[in-house]
Amino acid sequence: MVGVACALEMIHTYSLIHDDLPAMDNDDLRRGKPTCHIAFDEATAILTGDALLTLAFEILSSIEPNDINDALKWLRVIKIIAIAAGYKGMIKGQIKDIASEGNPLGLEDLEQMHALKTGALIEASIITGAILGNGNFEQIEQLKIYAKNIGLAFQVVDDILNVEGDPVVMGKDVGTDQARKKSTYPSILGIEKSKEFAKNLVNNALQALDYFDNKADPLRAIAHYIVDRKK
Amino acid sequence: MVGVACALEMIHTYSLIHDDLPAMDNDDLRRGKPTCHIAFDEATAILTGDALLTLAFEILSSIEPNDINDALKWLRVIKIIAIAAGYKGMIKGQIKDIASEGNPLGLEDLEQMHALKTGALIEASIITGAILGNGNFEQIEQLKIYAKNIGLAFQVVDDILNVEGDPVVMGKDVGTDQARKKSTYPSILGIEKSKEFAKNLVNNALQALDYFDNKADPLRAIAHYIVDRKK
Repeated sequence: MVGVACALEMIHTYSLIHDDLPAMDNDDLRRGKPTCHIAFDEATAILTGDALLTLAFEILSSIEPNDINDALKWLRVIKIIAIAAGYKGMIKGQIKDIASEGNPLGLEDLEQMHALKTGALIEASIITGAILGNGNFEQIEQLKIYAKNIGLAFQVVDDILNVEGDPVVMGKDVGTDQARKKSTYPSILGIEKSKEFAKNLVNNALQALDYFDNKADPLRAIAHYIVDRKK
Repeated sequence: MVGVACALEMIHTYSLIHDDLPAMDNDDLRRGKPTCHIAFDEATAILTGDALLTLAFEILSSIEPNDINDALKWLRVIKIIAIAAGYKGMIKGQIKDIASEGNPLGLEDLEQMHALKTGALIEASIITGAILGNGNFEQIEQLKIYAKNIGLAFQVVDDILNVEGDPVVMGKDVGTDQARKKSTYPSILGIEKSKEFAKNLVNNALQALDYFDNKADPLRAIAHYIVDRKK
């Protein structure tokens, strides 16, 4: 279980390092610190991303299953993570994001882009945890709803913070989306409707958790954190 | 088995696409054709490499094992490939290769760099085939010797062809290693000793196959091809 969390964090970090590259988003700062290609160089950033992605699968395949069901569960976990991170998931989202530069997206396309770019890996994180925790079919379905909603809410709040967040608290510049003419929820819906939308998404996520007892409280806390966060 | 071959080819292709990038080897041509970032753009080349690497693990984890031994074998195959492609294998080799620019390598360092950069994945290809074909311990050990020797022989012949190959047959320029002041077998050993070295390596590889009957003939043919090839 710890291995899966490590692997997912590695895949997330690889995607940030590659997304920051000059050929992609060309970002110099990430969480107030120089990005990998600024602190080192581009070749190091490309190879570090590649290494983290590969190491994630080394870790995931290093478990020693107890029996055939356990082994099947692990193969399923590896497959879910590979699909979420791959050309049908996160990478497709990044391609859509790059293609959208200078071509403003509608609400539906924006939602699809985020569902792929950040949503897919969030969903995989939650679903693989549920599989390894022996969740049943109905539980996994509810957690998928939870994941989809908090994934999108996270992105909507990200867009809102880029408009009215405090750059000191956030450790990065604000107003960059507007400067780059990026399609965002505030640019399409306006700031108030965006906040309302984020709250509704989090409520949907919390509702999906009604199916669970207080063991799901950490997931509830994550949902609340997503709308309340200041950075 | 077909899935493993596909996955390995994808990992090989991803490594070529990323190695060709401007921040790495900055190559415009590969096998006589424009490299990925020339034909498309850098962002596409980075993402295509990432997608191929991830897809390899999706394919490897998509098999449906028959029993626990079969499942354990597949998890072992995924792990071997991840290690060979990762920071302890291929990526370490690429880092050593980049670091060697302007710092000529000795024979031992050159051999280690190639053992990692190209040897690790060749060895993984052969070992995973042996594991899935139910090879016993001794067979796998002999195949490791075979793999190490043909892997290095391939690289030595590559260096020789860069000196005296026919650019029309090869579909790429020759003399580029010398122009870039790269450490190669001909630059350290001279061309005749390099040819002798390649032949010895192939003989070692063939000797390791003495342990096998004529089912290993395709591996023997590969060993002969490596020294005889003109491109």
